[in-house]
Amino acid sequence: MSTERRTKVLEVLKTAEVGASLLVKGWVRTKRQNKNVAFIALNDGSTINNLQLVADPNQIAEELLKLVTTGACIAAKGDIVASQGSGQSVEMHVKELEILGEADPEKYPLQPKKHSLEFLREIAYLRPRTNTFGAVYRIRHAMIFAVHKFFNDKEFLNIHTPIITASDAEGAGETFRVTSLDMDNLPKNEEGAIDYKQDFFDKETNLTVSGQLEGELAAMALGQIYTFGPTFRAENSNTTRHLAEFWMIEPEMAFFDADDNADLAEEMLQYLVQYALDNCQDDLKFLHDREVEENKNKKESERPELYLIDRLKFVVDNKFERVTYTDAIDILRNSKPNKKKKFKYLIDAWGADLQSEHERYLVEKHFKKPVILSDYPKDIKAFYMRQNDDGKTVAAMDILFPGIGEIIGGSQREERLDKLEQRMDEMGVPKEELWWYLDTRKFGSAPHSGYGLGFERMILFVTGMTNIRDVIPFPRTPGNAEF
Amino acid sequence: MSTERRTKVLEVLKTAEVGASLLVKGWVRTKRQNKNVAFIALNDGSTINNLQLVADPNQIAEELLKLVTTGACIAAKGDIVASQGSGQSVEMHVKELEILGEADPEKYPLQPKKHSLEFLREIAYLRPRTNTFGAVYRIRHAMIFAVHKFFNDKEFLNIHTPIITASDAEGAGETFRVTSLDMDNLPKNEEGAIDYKQDFFDKETNLTVSGQLEGELAAMALGQIYTFGPTFRAENSNTTRHLAEFWMIEPEMAFFDADDNADLAEEMLQYLVQYALDNCQDDLKFLHDREVEENKNKKESERPELYLIDRLKFVVDNKFERVTYTDAIDILRNSKPNKKKKFKYLIDAWGADLQSEHERYLVEKHFKKPVILSDYPKDIKAFYMRQNDDGKTVAAMDILFPGIGEIIGGSQREERLDKLEQRMDEMGVPKEELWWYLDTRKFGSAPHSGYGLGFERMILFVTGMTNIRDVIPFPRTPGNAEF
Repeated sequence: MSTERRTKVLEVLKTAEVGASLLVKGWVRTKRQNKNVAFIALNDGSTINNLQLVADPNQIAEELLKLVTTGACIAAKGDIVASQGSGQSVEMHVKELEILGEADPEKYPLQPKKHSLEFLREIAYLRPRTNTFGAVYRIRHAMIFAVHKFFNDKEFLNIHTPIITASDAEGAGETFRVTSLDMDNLPKNEEGAIDYKQDFFDKETNLTVSGQLEGELAAMALGQIYTFGPTFRAENSNTTRHLAEFWMIEPEMAFFDADDNADLAEEMLQYLVQYALDNCQDDLKFLHDREVEENKNKKESERPELYLIDRLKFVVDNKFERVTYTDAIDILRNSKPNKKKKFKYLIDAWGADLQSEHERYLVEKHFKKPVILSDYPKDIKAFYMRQNDDGKTVAAMDILFPGIGEIIGGSQREERLDKLEQRMDEMGVPKEELWWYLDTRKFGSAPHSGYGLGFERMILFVTGMTNIRDVIPFPRTPGNAEF
Repeated sequence: MSTERRTKVLEVLKTAEVGASLLVKGWVRTKRQNKNVAFIALNDGSTINNLQLVADPNQIAEELLKLVTTGACIAAKGDIVASQGSGQSVEMHVKELEILGEADPEKYPLQPKKHSLEFLREIAYLRPRTNTFGAVYRIRHAMIFAVHKFFNDKEFLNIHTPIITASDAEGAGETFRVTSLDMDNLPKNEEGAIDYKQDFFDKETNLTVSGQLEGELAAMALGQIYTFGPTFRAENSNTTRHLAEFWMIEPEMAFFDADDNADLAEEMLQYLVQYALDNCQDDLKFLHDREVEENKNKKESERPELYLIDRLKFVVDNKFERVTYTDAIDILRNSKPNKKKKFKYLIDAWGADLQSEHERYLVEKHFKKPVILSDYPKDIKAFYMRQNDDGKTVAAMDILFPGIGEIIGGSQREERLDKLEQRMDEMGVPKEELWWYLDTRKFGSAPHSGYGLGFERMILFVTGMTNIRDVIPFPRTPGNAEF
C-alpha cells in the first residue's frame, strides 16, 4: 500500500461517498481501543480535521494494532461509512492496515496531551504535527498565496530584490555581515585593516534589511511592483514581536501619491483577511475556539473584547480611521492615561516618537479600529520620505492594528532630487553609496509611493497567536538558529 | 495631472475605445518630430508595447516638447484615435502634456540604440526600462505566480524554510558565513579560537544552500509542501549558469515514490511553460523575434534548431524521455563523440559523473527532448537519497533541458533510519548535527520524495536568454554585489 495513491483526508471528509472503498495515509493522533473495536484518529495535514478509522481487533492483527500509536505513520484501506458519533460526517471501516513508520511511545515527544507553546518551540521540527501549528501553517500558506493573487490580479510584478547587499545605506538597524573570508585567518591589506577586496564580492556585504530601494528602481520602469522576501535585523530584541529573520512584502508604485498608497494598503489588508475568512474556515474556527477556551477562566476585564473570527470580521467590515500625527498627538496629550501619568512615556509636545503604548491606545481605546496615521515629523522618519509643504512633516503613513501595533509602514517617496539630496546631507546618508538611487530622480523621476508589510505580524493578527516565534516555521532570534 | 489616476498602456491598447479621453503616464522611449507633428513612443512597463502619442507642436508648448526626450517621465491627456501607421490599433492625440521628470540627453545612459547585454548589466538599476529586460521581468513574475498557482491548486503548502542556518550538513558546496561579530575585533575563547558563543546565534551560522531538509520535516506532518526562496553558494564560478544568490523551488511530498516524483516534476514544468505561452504572448514574441534576428547572419549549423516559442511548444507537446543512468552510460559510451574522442571527459565505465557535455548530448542530439535521468550511482549523489535494492544506485532523478542542462534534481528520500544512518556514516555526514532530521525517520517515517528547481534556469529556458545574470534583477556573482 505504501506506494499506492492515497485519498487525502480533506477530500474524504468533503466529498467521499458512503460506500466508497479508499486508501488513506497519515499520522496517528490518538487511538482508543477495547476488545471489540479500535478508534484511530488519522491526520495527514491536508486539514485540521482527523478521519476516524474504525478497526475490528478480530480482523486486524494484534501485532499491527499495537504499533498504531500516537505519531506513527500508517496506511489504511477500507469502506467509507456514515459516522456514528458526533464530529465528522463519515468515517472509515478499516479492512487493511499497514504501518509505514512506528513512533515509540516511550520516546515520541508529542504524546496526546496539552503541550506549552514554549515546549513546542523547542521541537519546532515536530510542531507542524500539532493542531495549532498545522492550522497556523495552513493559514500562512493561504496568506502567501493571497498576497500573490492580490497583486497579480492588479498587474503588479513580483520582483526578487537582492538578499546580499553592499550597503546598509537605509540605516534601518544593525545588519548581519556576509562573508566568505576565512574567519580564523582574515587577510589584511597594507594598512593592516581587513582586506575585503579578497572577500567574495570584493567588498563588505550584509544581509538586506529591506528591498524597498531596489523595488523603487523597478517601479520607475515597470510601474507597479512588489517584493516578497526575507529581511534581516541583527537587533538583540528578545520580544514577542521581533525576529532576526522575517518576511516582508513591499509594493512600490509609480504615480501613486500618499492617499493612493493608503487606499492600496487598506484594500490589501482587507483582501487578505477576507481571503482567510473565505478559505481557512476550519483552521480559524479551531484557533478561535482555542482562544475562547484560554480566556475562559480570566476576569472579564482581561478577556479580549472580540475573539479571533470577530476581530477579523471587524477589520473587513470597517473603514480604517485616517488621522494625522498632529491630530493624534492632540488626542494622546488629552487622553486619560496621559493626564493620569499612566503612559510610561508621557506625551507633552509635538515631535515625540510614538511608542507601542500610544499606538495601542489610539487603536484599541480611542478609535477602536485600525488606524492609518500619517504625516509624521520628518525628524523621526527615513530620508526617502516625501517632504510636505509645511517644512516639518513627511508624507509617511503607519497602519496600526489592534493587538499588533504597527503592521505597515510606508510613505510617498521623495521624487525631487534637490529635496532628497538635502535630506540625505542633513541625515548623514552617504550619497555616493546610493548614486543609483539618486539616478532615478535624475532620469525620468515621477511621484511614487510604497509601503512594507511585516508578513509575520500579519500572520499574528490572522491567527490570533501572540508570539511571533509561533507563526514562522523555524524562528531565528538571538541565540536560536536551530534546525 | 501628476496625481490624477492614469490608465495603463496595457489597458489602452487592449480595451480603450476610439473617442475616449484618457490620461496616461510613463517613460518616453523615442520621439520623432517635424514642424507639424511629434510622435512620442510611451512605455509604462505594463506591456512591452508602446502607446504612440501624437502631439501638434502648434498646440503643445515648444518648451514642453523639448523636454520630451528618451527616458523622461511624462503625463499626457488626450483622445484615443484609430492608429494611422502599422503596429498598434490605437494611438492618442495629445491635448495636455506634463513633464514629471526630465532625462538629460547628455547624461541619460539609455539612449535609443542597441546596447550590449554586458553594458546593461553594469546599469542593472536602469535595465528594466529596456524592451528585453521589461519582457524578462514580466515573464519572471508570471512564472513566480504560476509556481504558486500550480502548487496551491494541488493543495501544497508553501513553507518558508530558514535562510540563516547553523549547519552546512548537506555539504552542497561552500557557504557564506553570517555573523554579527565585530570583524575587526573578533572575541576569542580560552583556547584562543573565535568565540562564536558571543555571535548573534551563539554559534557559527551560514546562508542556506537548500531548504530541502527543513521542507522534509514539514512534509512529514503536512503531507505536501513546497519552498520558494533564495539559496546561496559561495563558489567562485564565473559562468553563464551560476549565481551566488539564486531562487529555488523545492517541493517535498509524503507518500510519493520516485515515479510520482518524476510525474509531478514533468507536470509542473509543462504547466509553467504552458502558462507562459498563454499569458506572456507579447513578451515571448519579442524575445522570439530577437533570437531570430540575432541568428540571422549565422551559419545554418550554428543556428538553433528551434526558436524560442517553438522550443516552448515542443516541451509541452512531448512526453519527457525517461532513462536510467545505466542505460544513458551505454548510449554515451557508444556515441560518436565518445568514440571519436570529441568529449572532453570520455565515458568508459559505469560510475562516471555526467558532465554538461554528456547531458547536452543526450538531450539535444540523442533524444532531442527533455530527459529524466534516474537511478544514479549512489557514490555520486547525496546521502539522503533512497538506496535502491541493487546496492549500487539511488532513486535519484535529474531533469535535463535543451540548452540548459540540469534544471531539476531530486530523489525519493531515504526513509529507513538504518539505511540513512549507514550512508551518513559512510559519507562522513555528522549525525549529531542532523538529529532532528533523523528523528523524522524514528517517529512516523514514510516513503517520501522531492526535488529542486533552479528558478533562474527555468527563466533562462522560458525567455531564451543565455546568461543567468540577465534573468534576475540584481545578480550576485564573484566580485559583484552592486545595487
